[in-house]
Amino acid sequence: MKERGIGLPEWRKDPLSGRWVAIATERSKRPSDFKMTQNGPKAQSCALCPGREQDTPPEVLAYRKSDSAGNRPGWWVRVIPNKFPAVKIEASDVVRECAPYRYMDGVGAHEVVVEAPDHGRALEDLPENQVSEVIRAWRDRSLDLRRDRRFKYIQVFKNFGAAAGASLEHPHSQIIAMPMVPPEVSGKMKNLISYAAATGHCIMCEILRRELLEKNRVVMEGSSFIAIAPFASLVPFEIMIVPRDHRPDFGSITEAQVGELSQMIRTVLKKLALSLGRPPYNMIISTAPVNTGNGEPIHFHWHTEILPRLTIAAGYELGTGNYINPTPPEMAAEELRNAAPAYNENIP
Amino acid sequence: MKERGIGLPEWRKDPLSGRWVAIATERSKRPSDFKMTQNGPKAQSCALCPGREQDTPPEVLAYRKSDSAGNRPGWWVRVIPNKFPAVKIEASDVVRECAPYRYMDGVGAHEVVVEAPDHGRALEDLPENQVSEVIRAWRDRSLDLRRDRRFKYIQVFKNFGAAAGASLEHPHSQIIAMPMVPPEVSGKMKNLISYAAATGHCIMCEILRRELLEKNRVVMEGSSFIAIAPFASLVPFEIMIVPRDHRPDFGSITEAQVGELSQMIRTVLKKLALSLGRPPYNMIISTAPVNTGNGEPIHFHWHTEILPRLTIAAGYELGTGNYINPTPPEMAAEELRNAAPAYNENIP
Repeated sequence: MKERGIGLPEWRKDPLSGRWVAIATERSKRPSDFKMTQNGPKAQSCALCPGREQDTPPEVLAYRKSDSAGNRPGWWVRVIPNKFPAVKIEASDVVRECAPYRYMDGVGAHEVVVEAPDHGRALEDLPENQVSEVIRAWRDRSLDLRRDRRFKYIQVFKNFGAAAGASLEHPHSQIIAMPMVPPEVSGKMKNLISYAAATGHCIMCEILRRELLEKNRVVMEGSSFIAIAPFASLVPFEIMIVPRDHRPDFGSITEAQVGELSQMIRTVLKKLALSLGRPPYNMIISTAPVNTGNGEPIHFHWHTEILPRLTIAAGYELGTGNYINPTPPEMAAEELRNAAPAYNENIP
Repeated sequence: MKERGIGLPEWRKDPLSGRWVAIATERSKRPSDFKMTQNGPKAQSCALCPGREQDTPPEVLAYRKSDSAGNRPGWWVRVIPNKFPAVKIEASDVVRECAPYRYMDGVGAHEVVVEAPDHGRALEDLPENQVSEVIRAWRDRSLDLRRDRRFKYIQVFKNFGAAAGASLEHPHSQIIAMPMVPPEVSGKMKNLISYAAATGHCIMCEILRRELLEKNRVVMEGSSFIAIAPFASLVPFEIMIVPRDHRPDFGSITEAQVGELSQMIRTVLKKLALSLGRPPYNMIISTAPVNTGNGEPIHFHWHTEILPRLTIAAGYELGTGNYINPTPPEMAAEELRNAAPAYNENIP
């Protein structure tokens, strides 16, 4: 135990809460790092921009012109390993114990999806087919990463704006593959399974049924997806985009669904920008665990969550796990239904 | 369901995650409120300062000079109902259902503990006996609120700094009493009970045993409390202050313990200020549920958590419930052990 804290990153489990924490020793931050970050200089140039491909780790996926060489310009979506990963591929997933603690090597994958070559363009201002390409990159990496059978969950997420945790301006999202089913997902699975056992129905299918009946929390309806402000929204203007069909796995998204999801994400983000002045937000894809060892987790119903960062989760939320939300979702949904973005599709 | 979203605050349960959200309709925030808060004017005068007692709801507790009148100056600690409460006393705790949703009136109590008359003094800069008085106010309100048997949990917390969710500068903490055991607490209870069933020991007692053996995560040792940087710290420089004795309930804190906890909270906050330049933080007291109906929850081991806000929990944390922490707790503990605040006790 003496050497713990130097060397490889490490997963550690808090025995009380059951959470796993990736202690990222390789990018260890000392007190002076935190003092500095408060007045960090604005980057002169961006390593995610075309022409700087040599300054990032080699790409693991790129959609690029057929006559362009790898790790050179010519791409429109590019996926690279995170230069400062929280977790690493070259590690073991054996759980060790030093009672009452459990820990393991920081095994995992941490990738950055560069959403477009253009540094200054927000996701919702990209053309619809470009956003479709971003969704395909999320899907393709999700399908590839699960081939490593150590990984039990693959989290796709996007942080937009400094207040939402984004440290880079260039439009990007991230993917982290991890060797355990994390508590948010196992908690949802548990609730889905017990609800199905009690009622014979999927919670999310029931949510859609209820929302389409009441309508007052529906923001948009498509042929494959519904965007709603959830009944118990954690935060103001939270939006959930749910496929109408019961499908556990985001990786199974069809081409038709990619196109509609792209259009819906773009429109919802434009509506949020119009109503709230381009707020910082987190977007996450919540999907079934992978490599469970006993077939597909049929109870999951995958969905996309968009959580604007207009309030600050503080001591109450940290202590209890409950939330206080000052904006009723019915009010948020009405506002967003009425927000009509002026579409400008004249973008190359 | 049609009238939902106007009128009384409401607790709503997310059927998927199991979280309860207080939808605070009475202080409903529309989009323009969020736009405004970004450039809010600095308050000219503060309603928590002495002389403004008439501008707050009437006090529910005050430690004050014996010759002073209630709701007038002369107090040194004052507890008042929150003027904009997320939850309300005058409501019912009957859970209603509209499948798949559950909800109930926003029953609860939301109080503000004014920690000192002096507007500009941080908690750690108050004299030790004043901090003891703040802890006594937390305890006294916790003991009083549980007499309302609808309440199942009483959360004491403090937000310091705007980045930690504090909206007032005047030194203060908050108490929320709620009609359910919240998920963070029920999750800890579940883990404590199953660990005790498997090993015969309390997780927290085992944590103390391990930490006192290894020493590298211990920040301070007192006769009644130990301050450690937790093995699986969620965030950089997280500190947990744990009583050596196995006691479930913060409300049972003894006078001797009040004095030592006061000294330890003050010292830890001073050490954080010295190392990190007075960072924003959340402090929470994690304690056993109340009014459980089947005696005291003997498995809990109450503790205080201090969580500096140096990083931003983002899409990864929201999606998974796992965390990435770039500072090993061993490094944080060493730094804080070595940070020696210059004590200035010459404060009235």
